[in-house]
Amino acid sequence: MKNIAILGSTGSIGTQALEVVRANPARYKVDVLTAQRNAELLIAQALEFQPEVVVITCEEHYAQVKQALPNTEVLCGEDALVAAVQLPQTNLVLTAIMGAVGLKPTIAAIEAKKDIGLANKETLVVAGELIMQLAKAHGVKIIPVDSEHSAIFQCLTGEDINDIEKIYLTASGGPFRGKDRSFLAHVTKKEALKHPNWVMGAKITIDSASLMNKGLEAIEAKWLFGLQAEQIEVVVHPQSIIHSMVQFTDGSIKAQMGLPDMKLPIHYAFSYPNRLKSDFERFSFLKYPQLTFAEPDLQNFRNLQLAYIAMEKGGNMPCIINAANEVVVDAFLKEQVGFLEMSDIIETCMQDIPFIEKPTLNNYLETDQQTRIFASRHVTK
Amino acid sequence: MKNIAILGSTGSIGTQALEVVRANPARYKVDVLTAQRNAELLIAQALEFQPEVVVITCEEHYAQVKQALPNTEVLCGEDALVAAVQLPQTNLVLTAIMGAVGLKPTIAAIEAKKDIGLANKETLVVAGELIMQLAKAHGVKIIPVDSEHSAIFQCLTGEDINDIEKIYLTASGGPFRGKDRSFLAHVTKKEALKHPNWVMGAKITIDSASLMNKGLEAIEAKWLFGLQAEQIEVVVHPQSIIHSMVQFTDGSIKAQMGLPDMKLPIHYAFSYPNRLKSDFERFSFLKYPQLTFAEPDLQNFRNLQLAYIAMEKGGNMPCIINAANEVVVDAFLKEQVGFLEMSDIIETCMQDIPFIEKPTLNNYLETDQQTRIFASRHVTK
Repeated sequence: MKNIAILGSTGSIGTQALEVVRANPARYKVDVLTAQRNAELLIAQALEFQPEVVVITCEEHYAQVKQALPNTEVLCGEDALVAAVQLPQTNLVLTAIMGAVGLKPTIAAIEAKKDIGLANKETLVVAGELIMQLAKAHGVKIIPVDSEHSAIFQCLTGEDINDIEKIYLTASGGPFRGKDRSFLAHVTKKEALKHPNWVMGAKITIDSASLMNKGLEAIEAKWLFGLQAEQIEVVVHPQSIIHSMVQFTDGSIKAQMGLPDMKLPIHYAFSYPNRLKSDFERFSFLKYPQLTFAEPDLQNFRNLQLAYIAMEKGGNMPCIINAANEVVVDAFLKEQVGFLEMSDIIETCMQDIPFIEKPTLNNYLETDQQTRIFASRHVTK
Repeated sequence: MKNIAILGSTGSIGTQALEVVRANPARYKVDVLTAQRNAELLIAQALEFQPEVVVITCEEHYAQVKQALPNTEVLCGEDALVAAVQLPQTNLVLTAIMGAVGLKPTIAAIEAKKDIGLANKETLVVAGELIMQLAKAHGVKIIPVDSEHSAIFQCLTGEDINDIEKIYLTASGGPFRGKDRSFLAHVTKKEALKHPNWVMGAKITIDSASLMNKGLEAIEAKWLFGLQAEQIEVVVHPQSIIHSMVQFTDGSIKAQMGLPDMKLPIHYAFSYPNRLKSDFERFSFLKYPQLTFAEPDLQNFRNLQLAYIAMEKGGNMPCIINAANEVVVDAFLKEQVGFLEMSDIIETCMQDIPFIEKPTLNNYLETDQQTRIFASRHVTK
């Protein structure tokens, strides 16, 4: 029996994680469920999965949740996430919350020696060096849940990480693949939210449309697999069947493939280091007789290039780009900024927020706050 | 330093294996070189690599080789292969000879506890159960050198063989992909020898054109990886970039990819269980922007279906199909039979040679001889 804490259980990854648990009740027990504000779904999940602790971070919903779950420990506030990940019986913490808010509970979970199912890429984007060092020091496994990183992680099973020559991160290209800047200047929120292959939350769907998601994933991969920027190549693969690849120093390439379904990497993270039989729909070449590949368009999709600049610069620069991106995506979803303005504001933040070469955890948290305030001002301009 | 005996050093795999050795002189030492009749090349190789033992199986060339290599032990005859694989310092025997003649030296090498770099698929096709049991009993590793089986072997690194749901063997489809029987009835030896992707010996090139190669590989895979016939699916992939795939019970698929170059699986077999940096040309998606997949055409290419029938029937049936195929391919190369007649003669052998459910090694050797005589008679008809 593996005991799992699910941070962000009402989101896209969280609900799919609970489907995986539901299909394997003899193997997985849910200890903790948390949500930001979707009290109704959180209550329904808690009644079904009977966790020991439930957290609703947004305080205004606390009373509702508490009343509905009289026999469960119900906490509220972001600090409660830090407490919730430390239950003694928990083996694995799935960090399926969105944004830099995932950083503190992830650190707390690592310090409590819980393995991490990492679905919160911002944690590594913001403070990858610190997190990976901490995980190593505490003997904790970081098992990626992003489909791309899960693919690379699976390709590295039984291999020596020092034999990696490069990795290929595949990118669908999003709904605007092939479009130019005059088109992108006028795209709407509704158009940007139509991802061709993956069903995901709103923020990551916008990030996919702008290619920022791939940029953040490149930074995540750098830390997860100990790579240099020049070892990480993004290749556009519109069918999203090959989830990513590793090229080894002998020239051999391994790829992990399957239908675009997030349940597969979640299922793998839960069963790791073993595989567990699933009844997920199987891939068939008859339905996908053609897989295509192309270079990403860095001229029209500037975010990917900005992310590579941040990755190469290091220090608090990835933290800046991540915080600025969270602000502008939120603003785009509120229709306060246009699609192309997002890159402009991010670039301004990268230029104007003070660079710190070797940041501490507090430096990261300060940079994050400072960038959010600065970016928000540019949104309202 | 790894000491290697190369059986069949003047063939396509053998010469490429020596290129790998040449590129890594500090890691590999050649103990044994053997050839059937290409005395000139064998002598040149021996002068360069200075093996301890040289074997020329065809006795008429013995004097020439012996005279050219006065300081080397030169042997002749097929039985000399059995002696040559047993040198005490040898770690790995690369079986790059063609046909069922590879069986006896492979058994001798396993009994002498040498790991096997298996480039002679007929060994497993003819007597897979016996060979795998023997390898297990002697703690010997069988490392496949066929690109497809090397791909699967690489995909299984660090995985549990019991988690295999199925494998996909990729097939280029050969030079006659998409052609029908009225076309195939008149194809020439010259046309059949033009493989679209791989540079290989004549016999395997004809087998690729007739899809028999894929049938033999399916039987080889059955034994190497402990599979049932229904777990082995052939998928036509004309670009030969994905060398084969494993689908696991959780639905995840791993593929091994690269340019179609036999040096890569040879290099991997030599460096196994490690990887070793190579300077082979790297794959690039810019040159292969499209990978395509299709079902094999079993109506027009009957050999693949015959091989599956033999695999499911078991016993000495794969031995029959292999021996019959060796005879008819030789006859096709001598322009004694047509392309489609090859399947007809093989099928006649499968019907007429006595079936043995649980053959001994002697049964296999007898079946092999009996089938060759029977098939040859049908060739001359």
